[in-house]
Amino acid sequence: MHYPEPITKLIESFMKLPGIGPKTAVRLAFFVLEMKEGDVLDFGRALVNAKRQLIYCSTCFHITDKDPCMICDDSSRDRTTLCIVHDSKDVIAMEKMKDYRGLYHVLHGAISPMEGIGPEDIKIAELLQRLQDDTIQEIILATDPNIEGEATAMYIARLLKPTGIKITRIAHGLPVGGDLEYADEVTLSKAMEGRREI
Amino acid sequence: MHYPEPITKLIESFMKLPGIGPKTAVRLAFFVLEMKEGDVLDFGRALVNAKRQLIYCSTCFHITDKDPCMICDDSSRDRTTLCIVHDSKDVIAMEKMKDYRGLYHVLHGAISPMEGIGPEDIKIAELLQRLQDDTIQEIILATDPNIEGEATAMYIARLLKPTGIKITRIAHGLPVGGDLEYADEVTLSKAMEGRREI
Repeated sequence: MHYPEPITKLIESFMKLPGIGPKTAVRLAFFVLEMKEGDVLDFGRALVNAKRQLIYCSTCFHITDKDPCMICDDSSRDRTTLCIVHDSKDVIAMEKMKDYRGLYHVLHGAISPMEGIGPEDIKIAELLQRLQDDTIQEIILATDPNIEGEATAMYIARLLKPTGIKITRIAHGLPVGGDLEYADEVTLSKAMEGRREI
Repeated sequence: MHYPEPITKLIESFMKLPGIGPKTAVRLAFFVLEMKEGDVLDFGRALVNAKRQLIYCSTCFHITDKDPCMICDDSSRDRTTLCIVHDSKDVIAMEKMKDYRGLYHVLHGAISPMEGIGPEDIKIAELLQRLQDDTIQEIILATDPNIEGEATAMYIARLLKPTGIKITRIAHGLPVGGDLEYADEVTLSKAMEGRREI
């Protein structure tokens, strides 16, 4: 009752976003009232367009506004290497690095018996489909370094063993700029295990 | 280049909001992609409607979707008391308290020589206009307890002295639930100064 209806609705919309509680939602809604009308219209349009125009690439399942996506469509990329990640944000993180020139396959999730997510709920069947034409020579498992990510990586590694394709897992170790003193034991143990001669 | 254009635009829009940096904006934008289409459309509509339908009450300058606002239009309220606040969020904070039954006057700012905001930049002329018909018997200065708020309160108090209207300032002191040990000296000094016999 305290707020006029249009602002109540805006506050409710902001509160549906992750990490935004009632106080932040009020602050954001009042900020919108003081924004330029053009900026607010752009914001509204951006929301609707992002939802309506973005699709998943039918090859790699990365988000895109055209199918196939920019990466799958880029003829300069190495079509023999496939990097397997959980979601589109991971693709973007890899692309920022600028070192990787192969293709991707986005699983859209990780195997998690706790949450009832099995191999059939993520894009593993589609991955097998992609491997049919024998162009892929290396598969890099870049799933997250947590329980679900490891389980997913192990599952895919075992599943693809009979194909004879080279399968690698990204390295675990100390993050660059990190501090050995504060590293957890598992990371430290992985860093020792993965040590290399220099 | 990393993101398809529709999501880049959405990320840019989120980044215009206060307290939302690039990483949060990306997180929110990807969250929107996974929201139900209906919710996203509602969000977009809420943004545009809040900006377009909300106006300022021509009497008290509180935000409203109809003029006069709910508070000015409520005949059960005490029309002899006027509470002066900085902005609409303050009106809402006061209304949540449910104790105050008078009217409001929203200044839309505070006098701040540092930021070049003078008395003519806030709704003081409009306040004087409202006092013409002699119905107001008490003016409560509820501007923020900071330098600008105090300056604004002092300015209005002096300006209205000749009218003979009773002018009060909300009390300064320790917040309820606070801890004396952690109170700053100025607050503590104000709390001592404002002590009352019990």
